[in-house]
Amino acid sequence: MKFTPVTGGVCAAKGFTANGVHCGLVKDPDKNDLGMVFCEAPCATAAVYTRNKVMGAPILVTKKNLAATGGISRAVIVNSKNANTCNADGEEKAAAMCALAAQQLSIAPEEVIVASTGVIGQVLPIEPIAGAMEALAKGLSKNGNAKATNAIMTTDTIPKEYAVAFEIGGVTCTVGGMAKGSGMIHPNMATTLNFITTDAAISPALLQKALSKNVKITYNCLSIDRDTSTNDMVSVMASGLAGNAVIAEENADYAVFEAALFEVMLYLTKLLAKDGEGATKLIECVCTGAPDDAAATAVAKSIICSPLFKCMIFGEDANCGRILCAIGYTDAEFDISKVAVFIGSKAGQIQVGENGSVLAFSEEEAKKILTEDEITVTVAMNQGAGKATAWGCDLTYEYVKINGDYRS
Amino acid sequence: MKFTPVTGGVCAAKGFTANGVHCGLVKDPDKNDLGMVFCEAPCATAAVYTRNKVMGAPILVTKKNLAATGGISRAVIVNSKNANTCNADGEEKAAAMCALAAQQLSIAPEEVIVASTGVIGQVLPIEPIAGAMEALAKGLSKNGNAKATNAIMTTDTIPKEYAVAFEIGGVTCTVGGMAKGSGMIHPNMATTLNFITTDAAISPALLQKALSKNVKITYNCLSIDRDTSTNDMVSVMASGLAGNAVIAEENADYAVFEAALFEVMLYLTKLLAKDGEGATKLIECVCTGAPDDAAATAVAKSIICSPLFKCMIFGEDANCGRILCAIGYTDAEFDISKVAVFIGSKAGQIQVGENGSVLAFSEEEAKKILTEDEITVTVAMNQGAGKATAWGCDLTYEYVKINGDYRS
Repeated sequence: MKFTPVTGGVCAAKGFTANGVHCGLVKDPDKNDLGMVFCEAPCATAAVYTRNKVMGAPILVTKKNLAATGGISRAVIVNSKNANTCNADGEEKAAAMCALAAQQLSIAPEEVIVASTGVIGQVLPIEPIAGAMEALAKGLSKNGNAKATNAIMTTDTIPKEYAVAFEIGGVTCTVGGMAKGSGMIHPNMATTLNFITTDAAISPALLQKALSKNVKITYNCLSIDRDTSTNDMVSVMASGLAGNAVIAEENADYAVFEAALFEVMLYLTKLLAKDGEGATKLIECVCTGAPDDAAATAVAKSIICSPLFKCMIFGEDANCGRILCAIGYTDAEFDISKVAVFIGSKAGQIQVGENGSVLAFSEEEAKKILTEDEITVTVAMNQGAGKATAWGCDLTYEYVKINGDYRS
Repeated sequence: MKFTPVTGGVCAAKGFTANGVHCGLVKDPDKNDLGMVFCEAPCATAAVYTRNKVMGAPILVTKKNLAATGGISRAVIVNSKNANTCNADGEEKAAAMCALAAQQLSIAPEEVIVASTGVIGQVLPIEPIAGAMEALAKGLSKNGNAKATNAIMTTDTIPKEYAVAFEIGGVTCTVGGMAKGSGMIHPNMATTLNFITTDAAISPALLQKALSKNVKITYNCLSIDRDTSTNDMVSVMASGLAGNAVIAEENADYAVFEAALFEVMLYLTKLLAKDGEGATKLIECVCTGAPDDAAATAVAKSIICSPLFKCMIFGEDANCGRILCAIGYTDAEFDISKVAVFIGSKAGQIQVGENGSVLAFSEEEAKKILTEDEITVTVAMNQGAGKATAWGCDLTYEYVKINGDYRS
């Protein structure tokens, strides 16, 4: 299988246009706060949502809409600055956003996916959104992906989008997407805001299957701060306009599509980790030889979630006992005495743990490795075939600063 | 029941002496790094240990010792700076510490409780400890508690000790203890290093029962950074020298003793929370009306563990949606739509959440409350009789600083 990166993000697939505008929810006039994605054809649509019991109003409305259409959508409407969650009239406002978008796009309100991100527990002012909707819809274009991506950013420091082209049965298909970070990220059967589009033709059921499977090994293996958001959502819209034979069973075409979707989701996951609030380093933790995949995932996530480990990566201090400590308190069954640990980066790799103990290692080499901005921790558990990879970032002064005064 | 605070900490109870010296493990000559507690009589002894699979060598040796003596001990020997964990010869060194102490005290090595705290994964140099043991034992005194308490401090900024006097059957008894913080604290069926002494006469079985019960509602409801240490341990030594009738069944005397032990453990727990690494504020979270106590504990701990909540307390920013978000992702079954939330301090209390949503509240009042250094979050779940209290602290620049460069 070959996946070729292409430009265009959420607009890369056939049939999709996008736009983003500043409607006035955020102060900075140069920052967009309202985004839209539109498809000229009805799209088979799949979605996965946060497992937080406090579920954002936009999620409740999106679920209702997709249930009403049987998994068909035409558009995404999304705002930043205000999560429209934990307030009295959230669902009403989310439904209004759908209705306003639908009116401009001449589609049904139920064909709209709605999402919000920002402060939890404040009333969402609908006036700026209503006032900007016409311009937003009129400005939809094939290269509006950057404007839409900008509209979903909150504390993100870089826009997050990616797309790949690939072949199914000799037909070129495309999957692309955009994502929003960068704090309150500890996905649980869901993710941060991620909107993915494709022109591959695929049944809603298989689209959901491919999405759910990939969520488990990408977004759900990402943690910035162990705080599972109320508004996490990932959606995939499939326009079918590429012209491939509709994928309706788990055949070779399905395998290609699933792998392409994985490529995009993996790339966005890493971007999210790298741009975690205040982050200076991307951390990838690979766990192999675990009793099973679930134990491997638990171990890898335990390490990338440990505040002490995250601080040591920030400080570039090879205090490797902390890695073993975090493995040790993982909620899974395994034999710690067989575990080996390695740290690496493009500057090299060294072993720092063996048989559950810290090894003597060169501090100089360790320092050289940790000075890089992408660090890998490899845990060889030597007791089975389970494996997993998790992603995270360091814990920094900037994280504390950002989150000590987030609302202003 | 009446518990009167008394001075003397770990030496307050009859029969106990203590000392601490600088043996050379830490650089600062004014900081003790080796501590000892001794009892003139054999003590019924109970202990609870970390559930981390990476278990410190001193814990393995202490467990072995207490098993050999049937729960009887005479002394504690403890060092700071090096955790003597995740290294090849840890058990050997821990056993050597017991033997060296026993020799000076003319007791059996198995009568010694041994503990270490500090960096994980480095070889413990035994020479400085061996060289200081005679002076340490010779200097034992009734007011050596401060020196011993100083010896177990690592990043702690304040010494942590407490003692109370109370009556059992007309006889005055005492419980006192010392504790060590202040990072890598997320006790799981155990705690940080805590050494408690009493002169009450009580059977080893009931002493263990009282300790285990109280650990669950004190240390185990404390989290500084969600990192469960490898070396957590709490021990209680009961000399029986107060002269009360031996408590051998769960009668009224037992109830008094259990409550006195709770007083000391609660006080130390709050001290640990208040002096969490980098902390500027103590946070107490009280959860009531939960389906059961376990759900209440889970909710209270979910809040005090949330990095975003901890940052908002540091920043004195009443971003109360984060409290509801942390309640929402708690791993327990409950109805979020019935939940009310209050924040308070000695400056007052205001309601900030109702029916699972954020209420409109006065920012001015909220700011006044959050400016104080002891903050209470009260969660009224309105769906049962379960209740629990958890303790934690804010997340600050200083935490990141301390832990970016802990080993130097």
